[in-house]
Amino acid sequence: MPHINVDENLPGIRALMAFSPASATPMGELANLLLRSNDSLSMADRELIATHVSYLNDCFYCQQSHGAIAVCYLDGNTDLVEQVKKDYAHALISDKLKALLSIAASVQKGGKFVTPEQIAAAKELGATDRDIHDTVLIAAAFCMFNRYVDGLAANTPTDLASYPLRAQQIADKGYGNHIFSNKQPVHENEGV
Amino acid sequence: MPHINVDENLPGIRALMAFSPASATPMGELANLLLRSNDSLSMADRELIATHVSYLNDCFYCQQSHGAIAVCYLDGNTDLVEQVKKDYAHALISDKLKALLSIAASVQKGGKFVTPEQIAAAKELGATDRDIHDTVLIAAAFCMFNRYVDGLAANTPTDLASYPLRAQQIADKGYGNHIFSNKQPVHENEGV
Repeated sequence: MPHINVDENLPGIRALMAFSPASATPMGELANLLLRSNDSLSMADRELIATHVSYLNDCFYCQQSHGAIAVCYLDGNTDLVEQVKKDYAHALISDKLKALLSIAASVQKGGKFVTPEQIAAAKELGATDRDIHDTVLIAAAFCMFNRYVDGLAANTPTDLASYPLRAQQIADKGYGNHIFSNKQPVHENEGV
Repeated sequence: MPHINVDENLPGIRALMAFSPASATPMGELANLLLRSNDSLSMADRELIATHVSYLNDCFYCQQSHGAIAVCYLDGNTDLVEQVKKDYAHALISDKLKALLSIAASVQKGGKFVTPEQIAAAKELGATDRDIHDTVLIAAAFCMFNRYVDGLAANTPTDLASYPLRAQQIADKGYGNHIFSNKQPVHENEGV
């Protein structure tokens, strides 16, 4: 049960954002800027970083939601997303993305865990300053989103089939306050 | 030395926000919404929560910056801010704020560390759902800001006298992208 009185028909962060639409606006804008871009890092790369950090933070809602969005961008390859969540070092992804996921995993522990050696390794594999900036900020932002969801004990759908429906909507239209604060309840053909 | 090529004349998060003004905008708006409000929790309460979480995350820049802003709101009482950072349980603050700081400290560890007992204790001491929401989101947001600053190894001024100058500017005018991305270098009569 959520720690505060929110709309129980809305899942996860959406209920919190409906409770507080003023803060939902910049949070939705930040998610959109960081995740809905193909500027050097693809949208799939960005969602994989978000999913891996959410997995490390043990946030069921966020890892399922963002994992499902990554699957949309990866032609339905759920196995790859599961592999990146749990053991990215052996996943069929580029060495550059592995180096960035290593940085993201350090950020999840704390900013000071990122080492100059990790940064140098990523740069040697072709990571730009923009790639490194975005990786660190995506990882940092999901340390916020994950804590917001679980710190208020937001409702988390346990029906795994519900996540892909919502994921496809975000893959098609992006994030934004209009989505997060949408009052449409889960049982009306939407999922998450 | 920062991990990416940023303006070395700008301290802490300001250099990162100048590097990435698009993401700076919603981050500045979120800071302003969460910290520049006297809606139930005072601006001093909000800065104390931000400062305590930044202390727990060992983010020197953020704990100095936000500690100095809290001092501005607390009539120059630096001793109180230091006490809240390091040992809030024995500080001369309300029991309600102590209960909220306890929740913030749990959020810093991870969202699931917040217990129903902590929430019940805060509510018994008069905390509203809005107070609890804002406490969790401030703590979560500083888990982002702290990781952004230290994850990219942003320049951190070690001259403690520089923080109060910048703090007074924020106490007077608030946060916002126009401040974070301001290109004015530190040595031009500004400090932080």
